[in-house]
Amino acid sequence: MENRIFNFNAGPAALPLAVLEEIKNDLISYKGEGLSVMEMSHRSKTFDAIIKEAEALAKEVLQIPAGYKVIFMQGGASLQFAAVPLNLLPDGGSADYISTGAWSKKAVAEAEKLGKSVNVIASSEDSNFSRIPGEFTINSDAAYLHITSNNTIFGTQWQEWPETGTVPLVCDMSSDIGCRKVDIGKFGLIYAGAQKNMGPSGVTIVIMREELMERSPANIPTMTSYKIIGGKDSLYNTPPTFAIYIVKLVLQWVKNMGGLEKIEQINREKARILYEAIDATGFYRGTVEKESRSLMNVPFRLPSEDLEKAFVEESTAAGMIGLKGHRSVGGIRASIYNAVPLEAVKTLAEFMRDFERKHG
Amino acid sequence: MENRIFNFNAGPAALPLAVLEEIKNDLISYKGEGLSVMEMSHRSKTFDAIIKEAEALAKEVLQIPAGYKVIFMQGGASLQFAAVPLNLLPDGGSADYISTGAWSKKAVAEAEKLGKSVNVIASSEDSNFSRIPGEFTINSDAAYLHITSNNTIFGTQWQEWPETGTVPLVCDMSSDIGCRKVDIGKFGLIYAGAQKNMGPSGVTIVIMREELMERSPANIPTMTSYKIIGGKDSLYNTPPTFAIYIVKLVLQWVKNMGGLEKIEQINREKARILYEAIDATGFYRGTVEKESRSLMNVPFRLPSEDLEKAFVEESTAAGMIGLKGHRSVGGIRASIYNAVPLEAVKTLAEFMRDFERKHG
Repeated sequence: MENRIFNFNAGPAALPLAVLEEIKNDLISYKGEGLSVMEMSHRSKTFDAIIKEAEALAKEVLQIPAGYKVIFMQGGASLQFAAVPLNLLPDGGSADYISTGAWSKKAVAEAEKLGKSVNVIASSEDSNFSRIPGEFTINSDAAYLHITSNNTIFGTQWQEWPETGTVPLVCDMSSDIGCRKVDIGKFGLIYAGAQKNMGPSGVTIVIMREELMERSPANIPTMTSYKIIGGKDSLYNTPPTFAIYIVKLVLQWVKNMGGLEKIEQINREKARILYEAIDATGFYRGTVEKESRSLMNVPFRLPSEDLEKAFVEESTAAGMIGLKGHRSVGGIRASIYNAVPLEAVKTLAEFMRDFERKHG
Repeated sequence: MENRIFNFNAGPAALPLAVLEEIKNDLISYKGEGLSVMEMSHRSKTFDAIIKEAEALAKEVLQIPAGYKVIFMQGGASLQFAAVPLNLLPDGGSADYISTGAWSKKAVAEAEKLGKSVNVIASSEDSNFSRIPGEFTINSDAAYLHITSNNTIFGTQWQEWPETGTVPLVCDMSSDIGCRKVDIGKFGLIYAGAQKNMGPSGVTIVIMREELMERSPANIPTMTSYKIIGGKDSLYNTPPTFAIYIVKLVLQWVKNMGGLEKIEQINREKARILYEAIDATGFYRGTVEKESRSLMNVPFRLPSEDLEKAFVEESTAAGMIGLKGHRSVGGIRASIYNAVPLEAVKTLAEFMRDFERKHG
């Protein structure tokens, strides 16, 4: 048993130990075949079984209804910021965006940079993104509505999905995919960089209603085209084979843990413990309105920046890493993705109480 | 010691056993830090040291002169087929391409799809791509000349680089980067998917003259922009951290082996052994003109398709995989990248002689 620390990184983030152990076990000779998954042709029978199982497990574990396609792409959410408008927003049309922080703003900026017409129909920037906007009107002729389900930096998360009628709902779910039961049927397209809840960085999971694939125009870069990459079942070119293999293992782990329902229950317990520790006295201060609090990223402040610095130093010394807030907002942030065990969260809450006793 | 087969895959392909062993050793707790490289923030000190060392080793091992930038991107050569014209070919200009097979043709098609003006100034398609074209005239006003240094499918390889004067030479070096000493100073831009000689799939190495980065227009997808991704030292967004780590290990392995000069010497010996086995009698038939033969991909035919089928079956049974030719051309192909040991090639040559005795 190797020494492991408690990893509260915002992403790339903790992976389940059982997954790492399986990767290690099969690293040099996968299932006795005499080569690593990394060394296999993406057209081999063995890898074909791996990618097909990854797709099937995504459909099963994430409870994706019929009529949806699962696609593995590269380039992270950043490529999707371009791919979504390139594929789904025809010239002359416009799309609606709701801004809940840095990532939403990047999505808007990328669409605009590519000459697309975008309406930001709601934003919580006036309150430094401390909440999910509650009031907005969707343009009925919008090509889609784009939202970010969870803001990693500010620690906000959508609790109820907007009703969009016939306008497809497009969602960047990078930092909370698979953290709770989601009615996928409400969405036109979901994308998620894998490096928080689904695997390592370098692969993006796209879940889209099949008929939306038909919107892709011919004159966009092939590697952004849902129609081409999806049409070739993610094998248009050499995909990031090892990263896809790990996504498969992570999905299998979620299934073995008892599925999304069980994972959600654990995540709610983890979040409850931390938010209770924050709210217990006046020492810690949550930065997010309670009804918008995230299950995945828990930001908070201490009475002074000096104490925040001491908190980071002492927690690191105590074997907990990744607790420094994002460089753009400061403070403390605990990212408690699926693979962060309950034990880690309990240890952190205990550390918070000790720290307060010592410095409060 | 785990059982390992001889891996002649065209890509993803064999990795050095020493590299796999190091990955395995550090998989769950990298250098005793208590977490995997996959679980580290891309902004952490440890990963920063890894990516900086990967860049430094690329410059040292590939003998890249001053004035060049090394960038790690995603999307493979397929994204570069778009990125090169998007960044370097202004509207109203045109670029020259030399076609030596499927990959060159895809590069041309992608540029044309994006509305760019392209001149194919030479092609060996009339001889089924059995050679590198020798005669061509570069347009003096071309934005660049694009070539494919090694054709994985047909087994051809440029032996002398074209003299392009002031026209930047752009090269897809995916299947032979690091196989021999190359005068990088002759090139404006080199790109290579890592999955043949440099690491796993999912990361692309771009080597470019720094001043060419200034050509990138603002209105292209961010993830294709050399100026943005290069300007942020490959950390504009979350890069494929684990794949970059493996590239670092592979470059370290090349260095430990004695560098490019030694690797080239071994590669020439490996290729000599196989081409001699092909040329020894009339049983095997090479498909490439001798002066265009590749050091990396060795395609050949047998007297009949039935014998080719038997060759693939019997070689697989003998512990050698990946010898079936590309589905678009048939026959046999042995890919003998850097990580394929001399022993594997000798075993294959011996098998070829045995097979001929048995079936000839």
